[in-house]
Amino acid sequence: MKKNLSLREYSLSEIDNLKVHGRTTDKLDPLTLFWTGSFLELNAKGSELWVEVEVDYEDYEPWVSILINEAPVSRQMLPCGRYWIPVFRGMTANVIKNVKIIRDVQAMSDDPSNRLQIHKVNFDGEFLPIENKPYAIEFIGDSITSGEGVFGAIEEKDWISMWFSAVDNYASMTAKALNADYRILSQSGWGVLCSWNNNPNLNMPKNYEKICGVLNGKGNMELGAFEDNDFKAWQPDIIVVNLGSNDASAFYSPGWQDNDTGLSFKQRLNEDGTFNEDDVKAFELAVENFVKKLRCYNNKAQIVWAYGMRGIPLMPAIYRGVDNYRKSSGDTKVSVFQLPDTTEETVGARNHPGIRAHKMAAKELSGYLQQFLNSR
Amino acid sequence: MKKNLSLREYSLSEIDNLKVHGRTTDKLDPLTLFWTGSFLELNAKGSELWVEVEVDYEDYEPWVSILINEAPVSRQMLPCGRYWIPVFRGMTANVIKNVKIIRDVQAMSDDPSNRLQIHKVNFDGEFLPIENKPYAIEFIGDSITSGEGVFGAIEEKDWISMWFSAVDNYASMTAKALNADYRILSQSGWGVLCSWNNNPNLNMPKNYEKICGVLNGKGNMELGAFEDNDFKAWQPDIIVVNLGSNDASAFYSPGWQDNDTGLSFKQRLNEDGTFNEDDVKAFELAVENFVKKLRCYNNKAQIVWAYGMRGIPLMPAIYRGVDNYRKSSGDTKVSVFQLPDTTEETVGARNHPGIRAHKMAAKELSGYLQQFLNSR
Amino acid sequence: MKKNLSLREYSLSEIDNLKVHGRTTDKLDPLTLFWTGSFLELNAKGSELWVEVEVDYEDYEPWVSILINEAPVSRQMLPCGRYWIPVFRGMTANVIKNVKIIRDVQAMSDDPSNRLQIHKVNFDGEFLPIENKPYAIEFIGDSITSGEGVFGAIEEKDWISMWFSAVDNYASMTAKALNADYRILSQSGWGVLCSWNNNPNLNMPKNYEKICGVLNGKGNMELGAFEDNDFKAWQPDIIVVNLGSNDASAFYSPGWQDNDTGLSFKQRLNEDGTFNEDDVKAFELAVENFVKKLRCYNNKAQIVWAYGMRGIPLMPAIYRGVDNYRKSSGDTKVSVFQLPDTTEETVGARNHPGIRAHKMAAKELSGYLQQFLNSR
Amino acid sequence: MKKNLSLREYSLSEIDNLKVHGRTTDKLDPLTLFWTGSFLELNAKGSELWVEVEVDYEDYEPWVSILINEAPVSRQMLPCGRYWIPVFRGMTANVIKNVKIIRDVQAMSDDPSNRLQIHKVNFDGEFLPIENKPYAIEFIGDSITSGEGVFGAIEEKDWISMWFSAVDNYASMTAKALNADYRILSQSGWGVLCSWNNNPNLNMPKNYEKICGVLNGKGNMELGAFEDNDFKAWQPDIIVVNLGSNDASAFYSPGWQDNDTGLSFKQRLNEDGTFNEDDVKAFELAVENFVKKLRCYNNKAQIVWAYGMRGIPLMPAIYRGVDNYRKSSGDTKVSVFQLPDTTEETVGARNHPGIRAHKMAAKELSGYLQQFLNSR
Repeated sequence: MKKNLSLREYSLSEIDNLKVHGRTTDKLDPLTLFWTGSFLELNAKGSELWVEVEVDYEDYEPWVSILINEAPVSRQMLPCGRYWIPVFRGMTANVIKNVKIIRDVQAMSDDPSNRLQIHKVNFDGEFLPIENKPYAIEFIGDSITSGEGVFGAIEEKDWISMWFSAVDNYASMTAKALNADYRILSQSGWGVLCSWNNNPNLNMPKNYEKICGVLNGKGNMELGAFEDNDFKAWQPDIIVVNLGSNDASAFYSPGWQDNDTGLSFKQRLNEDGTFNEDDVKAFELAVENFVKKLRCYNNKAQIVWAYGMRGIPLMPAIYRGVDNYRKSSGDTKVSVFQLPDTTEETVGARNHPGIRAHKMAAKELSGYLQQFLNSR
Repeated sequence: MKKNLSLREYSLSEIDNLKVHGRTTDKLDPLTLFWTGSFLELNAKGSELWVEVEVDYEDYEPWVSILINEAPVSRQMLPCGRYWIPVFRGMTANVIKNVKIIRDVQAMSDDPSNRLQIHKVNFDGEFLPIENKPYAIEFIGDSITSGEGVFGAIEEKDWISMWFSAVDNYASMTAKALNADYRILSQSGWGVLCSWNNNPNLNMPKNYEKICGVLNGKGNMELGAFEDNDFKAWQPDIIVVNLGSNDASAFYSPGWQDNDTGLSFKQRLNEDGTFNEDDVKAFELAVENFVKKLRCYNNKAQIVWAYGMRGIPLMPAIYRGVDNYRKSSGDTKVSVFQLPDTTEETVGARNHPGIRAHKMAAKELSGYLQQFLNSR
Repeated sequence: MKKNLSLREYSLSEIDNLKVHGRTTDKLDPLTLFWTGSFLELNAKGSELWVEVEVDYEDYEPWVSILINEAPVSRQMLPCGRYWIPVFRGMTANVIKNVKIIRDVQAMSDDPSNRLQIHKVNFDGEFLPIENKPYAIEFIGDSITSGEGVFGAIEEKDWISMWFSAVDNYASMTAKALNADYRILSQSGWGVLCSWNNNPNLNMPKNYEKICGVLNGKGNMELGAFEDNDFKAWQPDIIVVNLGSNDASAFYSPGWQDNDTGLSFKQRLNEDGTFNEDDVKAFELAVENFVKKLRCYNNKAQIVWAYGMRGIPLMPAIYRGVDNYRKSSGDTKVSVFQLPDTTEETVGARNHPGIRAHKMAAKELSGYLQQFLNSR
Repeated sequence: MKKNLSLREYSLSEIDNLKVHGRTTDKLDPLTLFWTGSFLELNAKGSELWVEVEVDYEDYEPWVSILINEAPVSRQMLPCGRYWIPVFRGMTANVIKNVKIIRDVQAMSDDPSNRLQIHKVNFDGEFLPIENKPYAIEFIGDSITSGEGVFGAIEEKDWISMWFSAVDNYASMTAKALNADYRILSQSGWGVLCSWNNNPNLNMPKNYEKICGVLNGKGNMELGAFEDNDFKAWQPDIIVVNLGSNDASAFYSPGWQDNDTGLSFKQRLNEDGTFNEDDVKAFELAVENFVKKLRCYNNKAQIVWAYGMRGIPLMPAIYRGVDNYRKSSGDTKVSVFQLPDTTEETVGARNHPGIRAHKMAAKELSGYLQQFLNSR
């Protein structure tokens, strides 16, 4: 092996020009990537670059994707430990490469020890400034927004990190089509009121104000996951909420019981197979309240509830919830958009939207969102 | 990190059921993957699997792609050293996973130290038999068949390992469409008579009978690259030769001179911009002779010269070369097929065919090859 | 010209096996085709077939499309007069051809003299029975459902019959995908409350119970257009209502004044560009009332309000209107579906959805409607 | 019916600005459209336009397609007689409409009475000049180039005019993509040496120098079909020859016998199913001679033999024929191009290429031809 004697190690805080995408703390030594689609971006003018990661997990390991000049070139499972990953080498030194090191799997609320950090960069060149994109979008969702099932054969059934994608999902595709920076907050199985199996604690609104409140454990506390998010530092032009699919599933799932309190929760079906009206009402209220909370922290954003990639059973309730918010608040910068359903032709692994379903959704969604960016 | 106590290390020779694809020696401890698209295949019934690789290089590092149940899930640059790569984990133990560990970059004739070997597997289950596919196809080509430019942004110019793909190129796509096992022999820049820059030593026919005769160096000799290939062990139903693009480029490139002998070589252009007739004739003869050689080692194969993904300037000469062979030999199992040209819409990195160009080529080529498999 | 001596003229009432599609009277001598997409269907076992039409108009002439075995083969403008149109000739006599003679342009409410009738058939064979399709769908809409802009160059601006299509629009495509018989009721520029230019008389609900109540004039009265429709004779499984685009345009158009009564009508915009709440409420009520009326005449149908091919500004009001109907009636067989928006890539003539927009809409709509047919 | 009092009849010779496309005589009163894809073009600034046609046939009737501003709007079978066809009406008078009245079916050599003529135009406006396109292409072919099977259901078997298309075939699509004027000379079933059923009289080269020498009969003689074509008046930049498919079929068809002379003809198969070498040689010579003849009449054209939409069994012989011509003539402006094969997905009626096959062929062919237009 040839030694590249020009390589030099930088801690991230030493680097003048870098950009961190996705909600996290302001710590750089190391940088923690909590959410799927969060990433470190560099404009690296040099011939060879490595990053040093630190990884831990018990059950669900992190994965990373690397993009060079917007093109995905690498994707890999990250085993436990602290070690160097090669990013590129042997390239013309005086050409700038845009580099993105992306967490390719969602925050793992079921595995408190899951951790992906970036410590250092080993590089033989110069880091150049990175311009902000003209727009910013925040996506809040569930497994669909986590890109679950984008990777893997159709027949795959295991719930594992390997099938998730932060690169080939509708959220990043939409952001790219609109030339926007973006952040993703998403949890597989979670809803706006409750999870797919009726756990009312697993809802995305509850922890919205925290950096990554969906996580658990002392380790994540120490990493800063439960600190207040600095909303002033990043205000999106658009917030896309893609929640409701798990809230709908809850109606067909057994009730959930809290082992500690003995309290239980269940979204009920009527005998004729329709949704119980009171329970739909509770969902509707959760929609209304979440929009209210989003507006509270995001002053200027157009809020778009985008729903439909796995059917639209709760769409009327979403429309009512949003309507109620609009009426009570007078706030007109909220709307609802139906995403195209996933079909046999577009399905991926684990009966989730495949890459073609995500492409279709991104095409329609970006077409719809364009109007809100034009009018700025 | 949770310890999986059921994991057990196996040297490859200990594994009853495994399959090695691509030309290599019969050594398993370790297994050397010389050619792009060569791979280790396992049917692994278990929950977690790792492979131990040994890697070296000076200039051009190897890359590996991993497929689980035919779906690509991972692709990564391999730094020097001997170490373990995670393949899958946390999966349902009693389900069989088809696993392919694929060398994702061509044999690197310019870097004698380039080496990718697999030593061991760490696994907690049982290896099940792997059936042969009903057909076998051998592909012989240049950078196109090496999938150069499939990865990377359009503007990339560096000649580096990162842009190559053994998974998303027309050869593997064609084999998949036809349900065939396959081997790829390819070298970027090489031709049937000479290389793109008129080096007559860089031709694919010369070393065809060796396991991987395009390589150099003592290291590769020790690995067995220059031993005779065991043609009895693997006889293809079809051989696809996709050569000629670099032979055409030679006409437009400066002459090549051998530093040792002082001898030089140049495919000449006439003043009116057409190809010199004698030089085309030399190419034509090289085509004829290569077909003759291929038949010599491959008794039953339909030999198809497939050409055109970067234009068809030498197609008439290819037809003549093949015609001459047919006439002189009486052998009718040889034909020529034009592949669709790469366009602005389908181009990839380094001005090479992109993934869409490879898909189109695979669609047309597999349609054409089907007749030869039907008639078996 | 060769004379086909086997040809024999049949008045339609003489033909044992024929099928009339689309709302019309039960008169056959002649048959009047009022609505776009209404047609005469024959299973003709013979070699040559002609139909005798009678046509009149002042401003907007009728067009006809002919389908042979589901394939469109002919489309033509019909000048005034009574004359024979050739359908097919020179075909193998003992093979059955499915033939559809389709009115390819909407009922022309602005031209009371517009008339398309079929008098006779000239044929040399035998008419065979035509099976009903397993499902029946009724489409109610505006210019989109009339296929306005499917034909013609993008730059066309004239409002003329030539640009309409009853064959290549989402309604017929959806029916074909679902293997359903279908009827279309549609008027360019009309809405559920008022027309694009605020004329409250031009709404589709008003005349729903009549055979073709959108028309005017003594001639149409004599043809039976204003007689009550026989709902018992044809009950759809699904009713698709695609109205609202013109109701939205009304907000941006000048008010309309009734020359006779002096009364005027205007859907108002607020100063900030949003819709006036009271006026949206009136639209919402119109939606609710139309669904009520549809149910009154169609006992079993799933009613689907499908909207969005030219934006979704009134979608919240549509959801509210449908919600209100569901709540007040307890009827759950009503739902709302968003159609994909028309983009620069999919637009046709007169800034209306082109054939690609219709294909996309049909794909998504038929996917959505399938569930209601499965559950029958 | 409203009378348009501004309409005025023009014989074609009275019209200052019109353009006749396709090989025909220089007679305009009336104009005879012999070949498929031949047409009358007008730039009509007015509100209403009709054309008067005269039509005759015994077995195979003519069809006509009408394009307004490049968009096909009408297609119809033309019964015998002399009568007026409506083209457009009710359009804004002061806008120019580009109008094409296209013969949509090939010259019918089997029906000497087949005739399509245009006598007059009835119009209320002004005819404006029509610019030539920058390039000109001549297409010579068989049923593929006649667009046979573009229209009609897959299962259609009858050989009738209805299934042909001059608008939706690769020739017109290629010309449109390259912005070229074009002419088509084509006959279903004909070859370069002989027809599909071994009739050596049915070859396209024989009558190339005549206006429409494939026709027969006194009527066509009087119309001028057998007069010498005026090659000076129209010289193409490119000639595309798509012949060979029927020559290949001849090997699998029974021999043909001349009833008058008793002489017979047969392209023979060897016992092993390959083509007889002498007979292939005859075909090869026919290719060579046709290219020679084409050059004789077309001084500047790049001649491209394009073949492959129904397989490539005679491609080696085509290459040899063209090679021989190049060698003997020194003429380098001749080349061969393989068109993409028709597949199950792209097939149309009568087992011929469908519209998707024509689109693919046009895409590849126009990409290939572009280089010859660039270099002018």
